[in-house]
Amino acid sequence: MKRMENIFDLSKNGAKKVYIDGELFPIRVGMREISLQNGEKVLVYDTSGPYTEENHTIDIQRGIRKVRENWTRERFDKQNFHTQLWYARQGIVTPEMEYVAIRENQGVTGENRITPEIVREEIAAGRAILPSNYRHPEAEPMIIGSKFLVKINANIGNSALGSSIEEEVEKAMWAIKWGADTVMDLSTGKNIHKTREAILRNTPVPVGTVPMYQALEKVHGKIEDLTWEVYYDTLVEQCEQGVDYFTIHAGILQEHLPAALKRVTGIVSRGGSILAKWMNINKKQNFLYTHFEEICELLKKYDIAFSLGDGLRPGSIADANDEAQFGELKVLGELAKIAWKHDVQVIIEGPGHVPMNKIRENMDRQIVDCAGAPFYTLGPLVSDIGAGYDHITSAIGAAMIGWMGTSMLCYVTTKEHLALPNKDDVREGVVTYKLAAHAADIAKGHPGAAERDLQMSKARYEMRWYDQFNLSLDPERARRMHFEMIKEGADHCSMCGPDFCAMKITKSIL
Amino acid sequence: MKRMENIFDLSKNGAKKVYIDGELFPIRVGMREISLQNGEKVLVYDTSGPYTEENHTIDIQRGIRKVRENWTRERFDKQNFHTQLWYARQGIVTPEMEYVAIRENQGVTGENRITPEIVREEIAAGRAILPSNYRHPEAEPMIIGSKFLVKINANIGNSALGSSIEEEVEKAMWAIKWGADTVMDLSTGKNIHKTREAILRNTPVPVGTVPMYQALEKVHGKIEDLTWEVYYDTLVEQCEQGVDYFTIHAGILQEHLPAALKRVTGIVSRGGSILAKWMNINKKQNFLYTHFEEICELLKKYDIAFSLGDGLRPGSIADANDEAQFGELKVLGELAKIAWKHDVQVIIEGPGHVPMNKIRENMDRQIVDCAGAPFYTLGPLVSDIGAGYDHITSAIGAAMIGWMGTSMLCYVTTKEHLALPNKDDVREGVVTYKLAAHAADIAKGHPGAAERDLQMSKARYEMRWYDQFNLSLDPERARRMHFEMIKEGADHCSMCGPDFCAMKITKSIL
Repeated sequence: MKRMENIFDLSKNGAKKVYIDGELFPIRVGMREISLQNGEKVLVYDTSGPYTEENHTIDIQRGIRKVRENWTRERFDKQNFHTQLWYARQGIVTPEMEYVAIRENQGVTGENRITPEIVREEIAAGRAILPSNYRHPEAEPMIIGSKFLVKINANIGNSALGSSIEEEVEKAMWAIKWGADTVMDLSTGKNIHKTREAILRNTPVPVGTVPMYQALEKVHGKIEDLTWEVYYDTLVEQCEQGVDYFTIHAGILQEHLPAALKRVTGIVSRGGSILAKWMNINKKQNFLYTHFEEICELLKKYDIAFSLGDGLRPGSIADANDEAQFGELKVLGELAKIAWKHDVQVIIEGPGHVPMNKIRENMDRQIVDCAGAPFYTLGPLVSDIGAGYDHITSAIGAAMIGWMGTSMLCYVTTKEHLALPNKDDVREGVVTYKLAAHAADIAKGHPGAAERDLQMSKARYEMRWYDQFNLSLDPERARRMHFEMIKEGADHCSMCGPDFCAMKITKSIL
Repeated sequence: MKRMENIFDLSKNGAKKVYIDGELFPIRVGMREISLQNGEKVLVYDTSGPYTEENHTIDIQRGIRKVRENWTRERFDKQNFHTQLWYARQGIVTPEMEYVAIRENQGVTGENRITPEIVREEIAAGRAILPSNYRHPEAEPMIIGSKFLVKINANIGNSALGSSIEEEVEKAMWAIKWGADTVMDLSTGKNIHKTREAILRNTPVPVGTVPMYQALEKVHGKIEDLTWEVYYDTLVEQCEQGVDYFTIHAGILQEHLPAALKRVTGIVSRGGSILAKWMNINKKQNFLYTHFEEICELLKKYDIAFSLGDGLRPGSIADANDEAQFGELKVLGELAKIAWKHDVQVIIEGPGHVPMNKIRENMDRQIVDCAGAPFYTLGPLVSDIGAGYDHITSAIGAAMIGWMGTSMLCYVTTKEHLALPNKDDVREGVVTYKLAAHAADIAKGHPGAAERDLQMSKARYEMRWYDQFNLSLDPERARRMHFEMIKEGADHCSMCGPDFCAMKITKSIL
């Protein structure tokens, strides 16, 4: 795996892995430190886990270090495992909470910094989650909530048409290299169990799934054969493997279907369409809704979070903010309150395709209907005609809704609506979404978020080219583009040439 | 030029060039008609001029058809040439005004359609411009104003470091193929005059320039040798060639410099930095400001529009919305009123780098300070750390400010801050900006703007793949991505595979 180890070599980009020790607990929080040519150092959030440690060797069979193993075992031995939400409500700060507070600060130390107590408060109020299945101790703690850095998720997973287990693990590694805060394994083809196992054992960020996909594979794709029992067994299987959050489409109900079926693009959520068909065949209510409290009791045992799926998210501008979508959203809010009753953490999934003028209403309604539970959106895409550029169509909506308060953005790749993304598409999608999330962090005034931009701008003004590359979200691409046209050591770039550099001229005035 | 002719073959994308006749004048307005597999037709705005006519042959030496030649000659023979603004103020609808009204409608015929009278009113009020140097009769009329479709500009032009005349003309053709509404020739290297001549004679959209660049070349790059006379001669030369709008940095004044020089990134506008240095050397006021009325009188003779340059646009998040920027904006507003006094059309240039939370203030202040003159922004970029992805960083800001009322968006390419864009970058930049502009058109409710999205969504739901490609902004890319993984005629795509297609499942319920 030398090839994959090379992609995690931070020294090529003027950076190294550093650790900040906890004050309350014996924890070490990994960060990335970028060293600048002027001697300054910039500390940034890092999602790459042990991969970027010096001399780390990759062994997919063995998996990565179980960073949280001791923390959780201690709680287990005492037979008193609880969810992060339970602890938070008791007023107890956990090691996980201190960990994410340190991570979020990126070196900010003043009054504005995020404290472990703020983390606890936000979790207790249901406004943030800290996904942490104890069976996935490889995952470093991270937090999803509107008071924190906007997070991004990268979807990976094979479909019936392609890709091996190793390819999927490499996609997961690739995604976290570029900054994915969580990955969702959306495999629907062969080897679902084994693919997921390999991903979990090798991924230092929380992993999400849509268990319905595997449940349906178990009944050979026959929706009429789906039962609560098959689904429940699948849940247990995935709980045990270590999945940190489940997309569960428990909010789509029989009464929503007439409105949904009248739409321009009907139901575009795979999980939503499966349940709609099941309800239609069986003339019964959604079994995820009727069995919701049983699911709560199961998830509570592992501290797995709900990601309440929006089976009725709009698939076109024409369907945005319609009766079907907002009808389901209200149900998701009711379910969130039930989950909280069981001390289970919850996030709410959102659209989809939404024109810019209708984005604000999505955010405002979600906050009210779901009592402040974190919002997790797919884009939204602000037009339907961007095929081949939908990472951009959706990044526009994502940045806006992130600023308005959405806590996590699910990336959309350039191949959306067209094909399954390859590694290049994953990189392009992740970096695009890091940009959207970062723009949202700046706009909402997250402490220290604009510090990296400030350092970048100073480097730009002083023509410190390597600092510019290293402070970028994709140093390798920036470096390559620059050197395609210019020699090492130039005091200008090929955009304006040597005589027309505005910054050079400005400095010559001073 | 067979190679370039091939890029304009609309039939490959299920489309053809059609013409709509004027009702008031004997004009023919070229549009693109996309034929769908279900027999429906979609009419869309088209910027490609005669290039997409069947059997059009390209001859760069000869140039393209002079579509407006007869319209303007008639006015000249009578010795009573006036600007579009003059006509509009007299209550006179010109052929150009009817032309743009037909173009803007894209087939919308109802009460919401844009009428020639609406065009006239908007121009008369200074809220829109119709750039139309009579010496550039190759340009098809188009309108820039907040009541109309959001337009995009693509910058081309060589720098001291590269590219030939032919390459620049091909870049212009390439830009209009993908939808650029205007192009700016920002050449600063050799052969400025000849490059511009070739671009003008071969470009069916308005062409803008920054005359200062050539003026500076005339004094061999020595800012201290710049004079009003050299600049004025350059203006006359470019007026005669047929440039349709000039970026003129007449608003940056001596009194702004102390604030500008204290900034993190100083002055990042090339024109602005040149004038700042000139003022500093000569201890005199900006000569473009002191000679502004002379410029008005010159531009009026050709109906060339001012694009009042923002020499003090912020080059970093840290400098956004600062004293220097808004100080200059007020001066631009005063100058706009002077230009209007001379019946000269005006747009106002805007930033730059602006975080999302500060975009609205830019738009609101511009409307007030510049009395509603159209706003023309560069992005804005919503973060500084997107090097290598700045077409996206800026498209986020561009879409938002377009929705808020900006009339034209200047594209930013992926190479921004790094290198001069090549043809691939121009395509990526133009299509990205078409998307941003289109998203803004939808959000602001432009009549019929969402029709193409609706057709696309219906095609998606019905798995009409070729219709999806042909309705996309970049049909060629969409088609290529789709067929990389799937065979012709499939009833699903490789994203979800045959069994997990939500739309298929939805339809099976009905």
